[in-house]
Amino acid sequence: MRAVVYRGREEVAVEEVPEPDCGPEQVKIKVAHNGICGTDLHEYYAGPIFVPTAEPHPLTGASAPVVLGHEFAGTVVETGSEVSGLRKGDRVAVEPVYRCDTCPACLDGHYNICRTIGFHGLSCDGGMAEYTVVPARMAHKLPASVSDELGALVEPMSVAYHAAGLGEVGPGSSAVVFGAGPIGIGVWFALRGLGVEKITVVEPSPVRRAALLALGADDVLDPADTDPVAHVRDRTGGRGADAAYDAAGVRAAVDTALDCVGHRKHLVSVAIYERPLETSLIKLVMSESGIRGSLCYTARDYAAVIDLMAAGHYDTTGWVEHIPLDKVVEEGFTALHAGLKMKVLVDPV
Amino acid sequence: MRAVVYRGREEVAVEEVPEPDCGPEQVKIKVAHNGICGTDLHEYYAGPIFVPTAEPHPLTGASAPVVLGHEFAGTVVETGSEVSGLRKGDRVAVEPVYRCDTCPACLDGHYNICRTIGFHGLSCDGGMAEYTVVPARMAHKLPASVSDELGALVEPMSVAYHAAGLGEVGPGSSAVVFGAGPIGIGVWFALRGLGVEKITVVEPSPVRRAALLALGADDVLDPADTDPVAHVRDRTGGRGADAAYDAAGVRAAVDTALDCVGHRKHLVSVAIYERPLETSLIKLVMSESGIRGSLCYTARDYAAVIDLMAAGHYDTTGWVEHIPLDKVVEEGFTALHAGLKMKVLVDPV
Repeated sequence: MRAVVYRGREEVAVEEVPEPDCGPEQVKIKVAHNGICGTDLHEYYAGPIFVPTAEPHPLTGASAPVVLGHEFAGTVVETGSEVSGLRKGDRVAVEPVYRCDTCPACLDGHYNICRTIGFHGLSCDGGMAEYTVVPARMAHKLPASVSDELGALVEPMSVAYHAAGLGEVGPGSSAVVFGAGPIGIGVWFALRGLGVEKITVVEPSPVRRAALLALGADDVLDPADTDPVAHVRDRTGGRGADAAYDAAGVRAAVDTALDCVGHRKHLVSVAIYERPLETSLIKLVMSESGIRGSLCYTARDYAAVIDLMAAGHYDTTGWVEHIPLDKVVEEGFTALHAGLKMKVLVDPV
Repeated sequence: MRAVVYRGREEVAVEEVPEPDCGPEQVKIKVAHNGICGTDLHEYYAGPIFVPTAEPHPLTGASAPVVLGHEFAGTVVETGSEVSGLRKGDRVAVEPVYRCDTCPACLDGHYNICRTIGFHGLSCDGGMAEYTVVPARMAHKLPASVSDELGALVEPMSVAYHAAGLGEVGPGSSAVVFGAGPIGIGVWFALRGLGVEKITVVEPSPVRRAALLALGADDVLDPADTDPVAHVRDRTGGRGADAAYDAAGVRAAVDTALDCVGHRKHLVSVAIYERPLETSLIKLVMSESGIRGSLCYTARDYAAVIDLMAAGHYDTTGWVEHIPLDKVVEEGFTALHAGLKMKVLVDPV
């Protein structure tokens, strides 16, 4: 079968590899779509980071070269002898996390922050291929009303949904989101799903602003034109937002977000910071606000996002594009890195 | 009467000033002791910061020159015509906060983060004098078992108690405190009062470590000798501390504290940061931990600290010194700034 194989920095190619065998506790999936994630871009341009090279990953036993791809959905074509609850023909979204089940975070049920966390498609062969095999517990069945295209977006939308929830918001709350890339868009969808109506999104890129406006967002700011702090204060009767989200990962976003968020409220960080940022911690002290990190998701987030998708809360219009497997470098990595596209799904067949 | 008058940076002198008149809603207090606070040092060496100069303070109407002193206790010598519940001879600790009662924080009951907060002894004449007058609601009666000396420490101990509580700890919890100045010591006392037994304190100064050890602390580290991260991980069975506290305000403390605190737990910041610090926000993301600011106190904290003092939880041995009013510059500001003393109480008579 054909697959996108990662061998090292800027060493990614479509290769012919053997079809994987389905183990007793696994299911074999014919992949419909597989999204390219910001993490994949980091691996391509700055990696290897998550892909194990010197030592095999402690949970998967695998190391480079690996087939990329951890955001995917498809159809079950085979089930292992020990698998129950799934059968051939089921359409599934995959929750691609390997966890140790023994570290303090796992023992507390927070396996999204497992100390030895691994990902299907980074820590072992993944979904940018015609077929892949995963432990059955990773497969979440999709209802008929959720397309394969949306199914491939469950992973990044769960990252965003998990972060949205950490802001402790609901109907009547206000929120401000910095960054309208796929995760920022996902936070906006999740907040709407949680009943939050007063959402301000701050995004310098006109392309991203236009995409979010087309989805129905009613308050999308260019920070070069409008001061987000004055705007959010004004929109919230002077209180500040009930939650702020950093889906940008740059100092200006963190700094401005801390001025936008209300007293004793939180900035939820769902960004990957490549280096330490200068942060005005005095702002936290003066208003007793906080910064809280958010990483990945658990099965609960997957279930919630699939439910919201089934209820019609998500829309791929204007920000999601498809490319064939053999164009993954030029129309995928290169185009995303250049900012020419927002979200790319790779279609293996 | 004699008073410590602040006119500007490094312009502090003991002067003869008129005794203040007691208004109808005020009480007049004969001051027993008044502590010198880190904030006072900032005003002396880097101010004016909190002392109003160009405009009078919006809540007090006062501006420089002002009599310093916001950490004090004493005896009521006169009560205004509208005052009930207090009488001549009552011994009181003063909660020196002026608040607007109209901003969102005040409306939510969090007047400690009032947007126009003012302090008796910075925003108007304070307690480094023979007498001072305060709104009656600021005066908290001291029981017979709490000395005037402890009474003068209720203010800084309430700053620390408020911060300790934001860490959401109790019996069975573990905690790590960075910095063993008066606030760090106060956090240690407060944590003990809250039932926390497993407390690690990290402090580079041998003098401060010795003081805390003499008070009964059982785990005080020199970070130059012992890696706090490995130590705390080891002491908590690999989980990390249930709460971390920054009472140091330097990058190394914040950075190390974020490695010591457990997953989904908080670093509480009770420091004043003079400038933005480089902060490794990625640490927050990877363990879903947080940083939360803490400022001042409310009446609840005052009541709790006075109760703990009455129960014998606080001890001034080895870290609190007294000086007469007329030595406030050389034996107070200068000695504290040089690190020769930890806490100085100024005795007006």
